[in-house]
Amino acid sequence: MTQLGIVKRNIVRADAAAVEKLSRFGVATVHEAMGRVGLMKPCMRPIYRGARLCGTAVTILLQPGDNWMMHVAAEQLQPGDVAVAACTTDSTDGFFGDLLATSFKARGARGLIIDGGVRDVDELEKMGFPVFAKAIHAKGTIKATLGSVNIPVVCAGALVNPGDVIVADTDGVVVVPAAMAHAVADAAEKRESFEGEKRAKFEAGVLGLDMYQMREPLEKAGLRYID
Amino acid sequence: MTQLGIVKRNIVRADAAAVEKLSRFGVATVHEAMGRVGLMKPCMRPIYRGARLCGTAVTILLQPGDNWMMHVAAEQLQPGDVAVAACTTDSTDGFFGDLLATSFKARGARGLIIDGGVRDVDELEKMGFPVFAKAIHAKGTIKATLGSVNIPVVCAGALVNPGDVIVADTDGVVVVPAAMAHAVADAAEKRESFEGEKRAKFEAGVLGLDMYQMREPLEKAGLRYID
Amino acid sequence: MTQLGIVKRNIVRADAAAVEKLSRFGVATVHEAMGRVGLMKPCMRPIYRGARLCGTAVTILLQPGDNWMMHVAAEQLQPGDVAVAACTTDSTDGFFGDLLATSFKARGARGLIIDGGVRDVDELEKMGFPVFAKAIHAKGTIKATLGSVNIPVVCAGALVNPGDVIVADTDGVVVVPAAMAHAVADAAEKRESFEGEKRAKFEAGVLGLDMYQMREPLEKAGLRYID
Amino acid sequence: MTQLGIVKRNIVRADAAAVEKLSRFGVATVHEAMGRVGLMKPCMRPIYRGARLCGTAVTILLQPGDNWMMHVAAEQLQPGDVAVAACTTDSTDGFFGDLLATSFKARGARGLIIDGGVRDVDELEKMGFPVFAKAIHAKGTIKATLGSVNIPVVCAGALVNPGDVIVADTDGVVVVPAAMAHAVADAAEKRESFEGEKRAKFEAGVLGLDMYQMREPLEKAGLRYID
Amino acid sequence: MTQLGIVKRNIVRADAAAVEKLSRFGVATVHEAMGRVGLMKPCMRPIYRGARLCGTAVTILLQPGDNWMMHVAAEQLQPGDVAVAACTTDSTDGFFGDLLATSFKARGARGLIIDGGVRDVDELEKMGFPVFAKAIHAKGTIKATLGSVNIPVVCAGALVNPGDVIVADTDGVVVVPAAMAHAVADAAEKRESFEGEKRAKFEAGVLGLDMYQMREPLEKAGLRYID
Amino acid sequence: MTQLGIVKRNIVRADAAAVEKLSRFGVATVHEAMGRVGLMKPCMRPIYRGARLCGTAVTILLQPGDNWMMHVAAEQLQPGDVAVAACTTDSTDGFFGDLLATSFKARGARGLIIDGGVRDVDELEKMGFPVFAKAIHAKGTIKATLGSVNIPVVCAGALVNPGDVIVADTDGVVVVPAAMAHAVADAAEKRESFEGEKRAKFEAGVLGLDMYQMREPLEKAGLRYID
Repeated sequence: MTQLGIVKRNIVRADAAAVEKLSRFGVATVHEAMGRVGLMKPCMRPIYRGARLCGTAVTILLQPGDNWMMHVAAEQLQPGDVAVAACTTDSTDGFFGDLLATSFKARGARGLIIDGGVRDVDELEKMGFPVFAKAIHAKGTIKATLGSVNIPVVCAGALVNPGDVIVADTDGVVVVPAAMAHAVADAAEKRESFEGEKRAKFEAGVLGLDMYQMREPLEKAGLRYID
Repeated sequence: MTQLGIVKRNIVRADAAAVEKLSRFGVATVHEAMGRVGLMKPCMRPIYRGARLCGTAVTILLQPGDNWMMHVAAEQLQPGDVAVAACTTDSTDGFFGDLLATSFKARGARGLIIDGGVRDVDELEKMGFPVFAKAIHAKGTIKATLGSVNIPVVCAGALVNPGDVIVADTDGVVVVPAAMAHAVADAAEKRESFEGEKRAKFEAGVLGLDMYQMREPLEKAGLRYID
Repeated sequence: MTQLGIVKRNIVRADAAAVEKLSRFGVATVHEAMGRVGLMKPCMRPIYRGARLCGTAVTILLQPGDNWMMHVAAEQLQPGDVAVAACTTDSTDGFFGDLLATSFKARGARGLIIDGGVRDVDELEKMGFPVFAKAIHAKGTIKATLGSVNIPVVCAGALVNPGDVIVADTDGVVVVPAAMAHAVADAAEKRESFEGEKRAKFEAGVLGLDMYQMREPLEKAGLRYID
Repeated sequence: MTQLGIVKRNIVRADAAAVEKLSRFGVATVHEAMGRVGLMKPCMRPIYRGARLCGTAVTILLQPGDNWMMHVAAEQLQPGDVAVAACTTDSTDGFFGDLLATSFKARGARGLIIDGGVRDVDELEKMGFPVFAKAIHAKGTIKATLGSVNIPVVCAGALVNPGDVIVADTDGVVVVPAAMAHAVADAAEKRESFEGEKRAKFEAGVLGLDMYQMREPLEKAGLRYID
Repeated sequence: MTQLGIVKRNIVRADAAAVEKLSRFGVATVHEAMGRVGLMKPCMRPIYRGARLCGTAVTILLQPGDNWMMHVAAEQLQPGDVAVAACTTDSTDGFFGDLLATSFKARGARGLIIDGGVRDVDELEKMGFPVFAKAIHAKGTIKATLGSVNIPVVCAGALVNPGDVIVADTDGVVVVPAAMAHAVADAAEKRESFEGEKRAKFEAGVLGLDMYQMREPLEKAGLRYID
Repeated sequence: MTQLGIVKRNIVRADAAAVEKLSRFGVATVHEAMGRVGLMKPCMRPIYRGARLCGTAVTILLQPGDNWMMHVAAEQLQPGDVAVAACTTDSTDGFFGDLLATSFKARGARGLIIDGGVRDVDELEKMGFPVFAKAIHAKGTIKATLGSVNIPVVCAGALVNPGDVIVADTDGVVVVPAAMAHAVADAAEKRESFEGEKRAKFEAGVLGLDMYQMREPLEKAGLRYID
């Protein structure tokens, strides 16, 4: 059960080597390597073009209009972490800005994923602090109500456990459970190794119909060509 | 009636000269030249800044979560075509990525319009393959169910027949029926020829109230000036 | 009561010095200086990256699908003004494009805020005419029905009186009542003066928990640390 | 090409016997009988519980904020028709109320499908005049701009030609092309004839897994049962 | 400027006779009588079928996730009042339930308009306490942050001053400024007096085209009839 | 990690006595008893007025446009269970209708919660089979791709583990983890026991300001009364 008022200090982060390996792949590749699961909803967008990140999740459960837990979370961040913030209800308030980003960055955090709003986005871009959010809004927040840090949270439709690997780029945000990080990284690598060859064939004009031998199954399924 | 499992091979494309002429005008101008009809909904956005295209439609009807018909459509694409993909139900899945784009480009396609999602958008930008879509999402799709190619489709609220001209830029996407392409191109040209003159007058401080002789009709309509 | 068919010619604009001072601050800072009120909804976005503006409001109430009042408003614009357009019903039509922008610019206007759609956005970017809108759409409009100019309007959830100061940047749009412009500018300045010091502390690794002395109130609120 | 300012007087309505036969089936059944195509989007809802209709389409293309064409359409309505109204842009204005419903009913119309808003819904329910709409809104409209009557329109994502059969109930709205009405009615009848038998089996506790012989294909697809 | 932390005790309520007169008309009629302004957005829906109300506004500005001001407002409610609640940011939380409704009812309030969420809707229906809201959600709120009572608020896109008349029914919610209540009530009465006659004509089969003499203006506008 | 192609047969259902006790309380009360967590998003609505349910979750992960797993799940349903269906991507297709409901009911299921669409809603109401869904849509689905049954799923923003208690009524849907069912039921009971007393006080005209002793904290927070 989701509990409020809790900060878990010791979390098991995904293995650093697996994180490093996963960081080489795009979100689409990682998501395919997981069997097409683990994505957040498409409302989660980078706040500036070119933002991307890969790291281990420190999770934050916020209350609407309140960013108190952001400060509590800062202390739990370690180099290589990514803050992942959910909220107990839908909100687009600007829970996060350049001052908190300065603090998170000083702790070694690699960015923020937030199912909510963010502000000071020009400054965040200048700082090179990547954020993926569902809204940009100047609306400020208060510090009055307890949420939690490092409990499992649902963020933009995806379950995130503290220590999971988060990969985010222009295509979206994907969550890799810590225990599967190595296996997924290997699967992503294997998948990507085939891409160059396929691309070369497509460039040469080979059709997917032939490359993937689809003509027969399409005919069996009943596809009819007419003039 | 929309039929599934059909691929029409021979379609009548709009005249190449009309397409070339239409390619010189922006979407807003073409839409006005058509009498303010033919636009797709404003949710259709370019996936990178500066994307624009003009070409003849090869239409694709997809099933949710399934991009099989993209491969079937590739074979029907000819140089100068634009793929226009609709779906039998609302979906934001990533039906299209850089591999398919490589294949479409090799066929001579000028871009994609999709009432759905797309992924690998950084690669698509690097390739210079323009896509207009309602979502960016890494979510992958399967190849299991038949849709159709080159039947009339409704894409983002607009009816598209195979062979119609598609013009797309930052302002949106407009569909010009093949049979009207010449007439619309001429009307767009005429419309644009007046713009320079109007712009010069506006720059010189002339008001639209005077340029368009609106003062009298406004007074008749009952407009009152108060202090 | 909102009255249609009215143009108010003499409006009391916020003091020029206060406007100039407010122009130095970002939207988030101004909104905080007002006590966290005055923001438009987050659907209001700049049509190009880097757009920002600060000026005094000339308000426009449009009818759906009709931009006649834009031309009426042009005559009321003075150097330093910002056009603020609302609509009597939700609409994403392209009420505004490069020709009107040329006219508004010739009048000295600093930009447009519109709870509706806009088009010709590439040209507007080239002109350096900032617009904040909820949609980009090529859809053209007619000139047939009276709205009003310089009456109080509700634009994207915020009340705007003619003469109020509008500040807009990447974080959104905020409305400062004319009578409060000086006080808000002073409060913004005071607020910003503390930011540099805070940022330096955060950069040095000081936690918000300590800087804002949150540990005790968090404990009182019941926050529990677990391992 | 969609043309404005046109009223087509003579349209070919679907055969009355086919319409009568289709009226016996629900929307879900008709849509399945068509091969799972022809539905409007799920935003189209009955304005009162229990509303349902079946009839031949008289199509209307409206302009935003303007219901002039409703009156033009009234004259084209014949007993057994259903008015189907689209708009050149998204709008939720109340284009239709109890007075127009009185007029439509006097002409023998069976109801209205509108990709827009409607008002006076309590009166419409009392009159027993079924309407399927995407919004209920008191917002009134003007009579100033031409649209068209009895041209092909896209309504809530579906193409509707004048004379097509419209079936609508609590599950949504489906469009049956006039030329296919008999075939679809027959297919719907066949489909429904199997339903009773299936229902009896399900009631008796037979599983779909067994009834549809799914166990083997599921195993082939790789489904694994764990404890 | 919107000020937080303020409760205005003495407000000027619209004249009781005007309120009583307005209560006889539907929202659509009142809105037309005002010149087609004053409506809230169509997302505002009655929480149970048949809910309707008319009374004078006591306004409430809430903070997200916080309903403290509801209790402050209760004391300001007088018999015949309608509570009108806005929020400083978009929220669908359940700010209001059956206990508060019991308190409001005991004060003589006639209902609630809330640009937010509400809960205990079955109980509210049993109590006969009408609520118009944009969401139904069980999500509870806290009591920690000050908003205001009886300041001007923007609720669902409409400006509401304390003391204004609120009329709400199945068609939506309309705001009549206190000073205009008599004039609007008179205009509504006049408007309604014509309705019966019109309805009779429509029932008799007279077309709007003839009743409103539209044939000539339609022809002038260029309407063409084709066969 | 979410795994596809898995059916877990043995799940630990919440204790029957706790389920029975929870069934006596409304969703708002249960959610408060849990500390204001556990709710699904407000888009989840009953498909007919008065629908309510309480039971133990059998979870289903669907693929877009595909309801194969519904049949697989039917076999896992036991008397007292509630089917809870999520989808790997956003979809409003009609995954469920009266035939599946007949099957589920024959298995003893108490209803369905689905983050998707449903159809045959009139029949479902007649059967008394409660469904909470985000859409009603006639759109049919295929049976081609594996999902899973009885794995943890995220449904409308809430994490649901197989065996958890689901309580749903007009106010929404709440998830009670199986291990906490007794404690939450007790807390709900305690909470409700105070309600009658409070209601009586409110009915007698006592203000929340006095009943909850809010006057002092409000004054401390800075609330000012003006005339």
